[in-house]
Formats: sequence, structure tokens, C-alpha cells
Amino acid sequence: MSAPRPRPTCPGLSSVPVTQLEIRRAGDEDWPAIWPIWHEVVAAGETYTWDPETGEAAARALWMPPPPAETWVAVDGQTIVGTAVLKPNQAALGAHIANGSFMVPATSGGRGIGRRLAEQVIARAGASGYRGMQFNAVVSTNEPAVALWKSLGFAIVGTIPGGFRHARLGYVDLHIMYRELP
Amino acid sequence: MSAPRPRPTCPGLSSVPVTQLEIRRAGDEDWPAIWPIWHEVVAAGETYTWDPETGEAAARALWMPPPPAETWVAVDGQTIVGTAVLKPNQAALGAHIANGSFMVPATSGGRGIGRRLAEQVIARAGASGYRGMQFNAVVSTNEPAVALWKSLGFAIVGTIPGGFRHARLGYVDLHIMYRELP
Repeated sequence: MSAPRPRPTCPGLSSVPVTQLEIRRAGDEDWPAIWPIWHEVVAAGETYTWDPETGEAAARALWMPPPPAETWVAVDGQTIVGTAVLKPNQAALGAHIANGSFMVPATSGGRGIGRRLAEQVIARAGASGYRGMQFNAVVSTNEPAVALWKSLGFAIVGTIPGGFRHARLGYVDLHIMYRELP
Repeated sequence: MSAPRPRPTCPGLSSVPVTQLEIRRAGDEDWPAIWPIWHEVVAAGETYTWDPETGEAAARALWMPPPPAETWVAVDGQTIVGTAVLKPNQAALGAHIANGSFMVPATSGGRGIGRRLAEQVIARAGASGYRGMQFNAVVSTNEPAVALWKSLGFAIVGTIPGGFRHARLGYVDLHIMYRELP
């Protein structure tokens, strides 16, 4: 990763600096700090297909799968402020395409944490030999995510109409997004 | 299902009639007859992403998952000549879209078995309340499958370039295909 750079602040967004942000692999000892983030994001029922009532043990199995999957965290000082999973998107003959999942809690939103976490995980995927990265289920109404992925080189390659049952909005589209890796 | 109809024969294709074909749910007792089909199809490395060397226990776990997944077989007389799995394509908030997987052994190809199996499984999916059916990884070079799915109302909604490492052809595209269900 390049050295942290100052980020412009935006009206209405937090301007708490994240220059000390560390992006690193997660270990088992990180799970207790990941779980509240995971639960907050999934319980909202707005961005992930997992059951909003998923319990902690099932969540841990989903978010900390065995190798070659890798779980990552973004750490601001001593606080985990984001997390990601990098893994093959398909089995053996499709395992050269990566899948990535990312979560940042609402209290840490608007600070560029998701972008920096994604930049590092995407770079890691390329360095690991993956030839592309695919998202199977980007909720169309999650506009910040769609915009972030587009800005990071992803394109919407397909859309499943009404593929997501949004907790507030009912059936909304799911996008499949993809980018090649260098 | 409508009553079986005579099918036109095609030059070079088997004309063994399949009017006695029975399409039914599979039980545990069917696995020994499903496994050789599964192994033949997956070992070829041309149509499924699973490791061509997948062993029987792992194969069974993949092909006979617990409910709400359903495993189906096409039976000609006493012989299983095709098999399918119907299951949700995503977790809870995406579980209203079905995923289907289908296999017919080479020795039973060209007899319309795949089509009849698919017609019944698609009808079952609609009757079960699924709102659409999605295929995540249709190998682009599997032209008979792509043609069959198009003829059954599926469209290619997206393509992952080089998403499949074909055993003979190297990297080839993977299609995502989708159709609504009535």
C-alpha cells in the first residue's frame, strides 16, 4: 500500500482522520470485535442476503472460513473499524476468480475506511494470483457501495431483477459486479 | 407435467425412446446410481467448477444437500439417466431466487432427457414459490446447455471473462443465466 495521504473532508461526513489506519489479516482473537460489526450490518437486512437473525457461531463460520479464504480487518488505533473476506468465488475450476465481502459499521462510515480496506484487499487478491474479482450480490439500493466499486474499476456485468428482499424496500435488484486484476 | 410426447429424432443422435421417463425426487437410496453420473460429468472438467478429482463423500454432500434443497432424478425403466438439484441461490434475503444444477451422462445424451428433467424442475421451482431461477456458472463452451437454457426462457444476464478453467480449452467465459418463474 502507498503511504496514507490526507483525505478531503466532505460536508456532513465525519472528518475524523484515519491516517493511522492499519489494514491487516484477522486472527481468531479479532472475532469478538468483528462480531458487533457483522451483526449490525446483517441485522439491518439492507446489504447482505444472510438472515438478519444469524447468531454469532454461524456468523463466525461465514466470515472466518478456512484457507484459502482470508479475513481482514481495518484497525484505527486499537479499534476494528472495518472487515473483509477474500476467497475464491467458485470451486476448483473457477477458483482463479476472487470474491470479496466488506463491512464498515455506520459509526465509521464516510471516512474512506471501506475504500482503503478494499484497495488493500484488491491488491492482495492480485498478488495472490487471482485473475479477477467478482461480487455476486451487490444490492442495487446500496448506492454508496455501487459507486465505490465502480470507482475501483468494477463494472455491473449483470442484474438479477428483484433478487434481494430488502428489509425496508421489499424486492430490489441485485447486481453482479466484476473487475479484472492486474 | 404434460403427457410425454414423441420426440423427433436427429441424425447422429440416439433415438431410444424415453416415453417411460419418470422424473421424481431422489432419496438416499438413489445415491449409488447418481454417483457414477456425477463423477463422469465432473471428472471431465468441462462443465462444472468442482474439482475433477472430487471423491464420493464430498460429491454426495454437494449434490444431496439438506432441505430446502431438493435432489431429483430422471429414471428410464430402472435406470437413472439424469439428476438435478434445486435450491435457493442465495441466503435468506435472496432465497426467493432458485438455483438449479443438472447432469445427464454422455450415454443418455441427445434424447431430450435434460430438457424434460429441466422442465419439471423449473415447474417445481415455480410451484414452490421461487420467483426466478439463476445459474451462476454456465460454461460458455457448453453450447448444448446454453442453447437448452435459452430455449427454456433463460437469458444470459452477465458473463465473467475467462471465469472457467476448462480441462481442454483453458480459460473460457462463464455465463450467468436467469429467468423469471410464473
